[in-house]
Amino acid sequence: MINTRYSSQLLEKAVMEINRLPGIGSKTALRLALHLLRQDEERVEALAESLVEMRRGVHYCQVCHNICDDERCEICSNPSRDASLVCVVENVQDVMAIENTMQYRGLYHVLGGVISPMDGIGPSDLQIESLVERVRQGGVEEVILALSPTMEGDTTNYYIYRKLEEIGVNQVPSASDRREERKVKVTVIARGIAQNDELQYTDEVTLGRALAGRVPFGG
Amino acid sequence: MINTRYSSQLLEKAVMEINRLPGIGSKTALRLALHLLRQDEERVEALAESLVEMRRGVHYCQVCHNICDDERCEICSNPSRDASLVCVVENVQDVMAIENTMQYRGLYHVLGGVISPMDGIGPSDLQIESLVERVRQGGVEEVILALSPTMEGDTTNYYIYRKLEEIGVNQVPSASDRREERKVKVTVIARGIAQNDELQYTDEVTLGRALAGRVPFGG
Repeated sequence: MINTRYSSQLLEKAVMEINRLPGIGSKTALRLALHLLRQDEERVEALAESLVEMRRGVHYCQVCHNICDDERCEICSNPSRDASLVCVVENVQDVMAIENTMQYRGLYHVLGGVISPMDGIGPSDLQIESLVERVRQGGVEEVILALSPTMEGDTTNYYIYRKLEEIGVNQVPSASDRREERKVKVTVIARGIAQNDELQYTDEVTLGRALAGRVPFGG
Repeated sequence: MINTRYSSQLLEKAVMEINRLPGIGSKTALRLALHLLRQDEERVEALAESLVEMRRGVHYCQVCHNICDDERCEICSNPSRDASLVCVVENVQDVMAIENTMQYRGLYHVLGGVISPMDGIGPSDLQIESLVERVRQGGVEEVILALSPTMEGDTTNYYIYRKLEEIGVNQVPSASDRREERKVKVTVIARGIAQNDELQYTDEVTLGRALAGRVPFGG
């Protein structure tokens, strides 16, 4: 539909705006615009308002950088969550995914991505410094790295590990006079074959890691 | 992502609204909402405004029911178009598709769908009466039926044909005293194999119609 001539400039403008959204081509944009034309005016206004209000009103948590409606997110301000655990994730969707497991009672730290030189994303573009500062301030006993199992994720994991090492965490005390030194465990979520995946179709890296990371049966 | 707990109610509301759009699931809705969160506030406002302005401002052409910004669409109000030709289509996208061929200089009549008892769409839900009235008023020499080649499209074609017959068009004059009677030709767009389609994979109905509708080579 290149060079499509729209019979209405208002329609054309709306299609153009919808078309800017990622993954929405011009045909889908037209389909959505025509769908909205068939809806009540109130419905379209509700959609439009929800977008603007979200953009204007949403905050990022000052502690973990998760999306929230206040200065601090519900998770960080929940006293029943375990503040000694910090799970480092790439984005807000990952927080939701982990929350949906109902298995985690600690806090989060949303990086905002992973280090990816190809995409021009360096450590300073991510919330790594604030993570280090958060750990430096104390109270954190374990940092759980839950980034994507990709080269970029691994690079970021390693970078964070090194940064935390620099501030003296994660070091095994070498002398008795260092026993009082603050120690923070850095862990990474298990990599292995996914539930219901078939072994024969699992790639060799995953299978290798699953073997290397085997745990006692029944444990 | 059923029962996902959103950390922001503003985000949740926006996702819910986006999720109402046809063909946009909850994961895509979340992805789009988070994309909008990363955009400038002006961009989100521009999108929201374009939707509301379109819904408020768009008219339907009083003649052909195409979408337009005024009482009458650009095509109907263009004096260089051939007003003796009326092409009957299902929807606005079909008008655009035919306009894109650059082969048609007549006018349109947008039905707003096809007769489909399964979906509860009867003739009175469509712009058929206004088409008949338009033909009755004179000036139309040919009505081109360009509906979808489906059972519903065929049914609608036949219904329109019968309705036009009722008002006396499309009748071959049977006596010399009826020579002056208004005649309107009713035609239907050719059905056959599509450009670049392979014959062996063409369904038998299409192939049968293509054979029956063969034309002199080079014509």
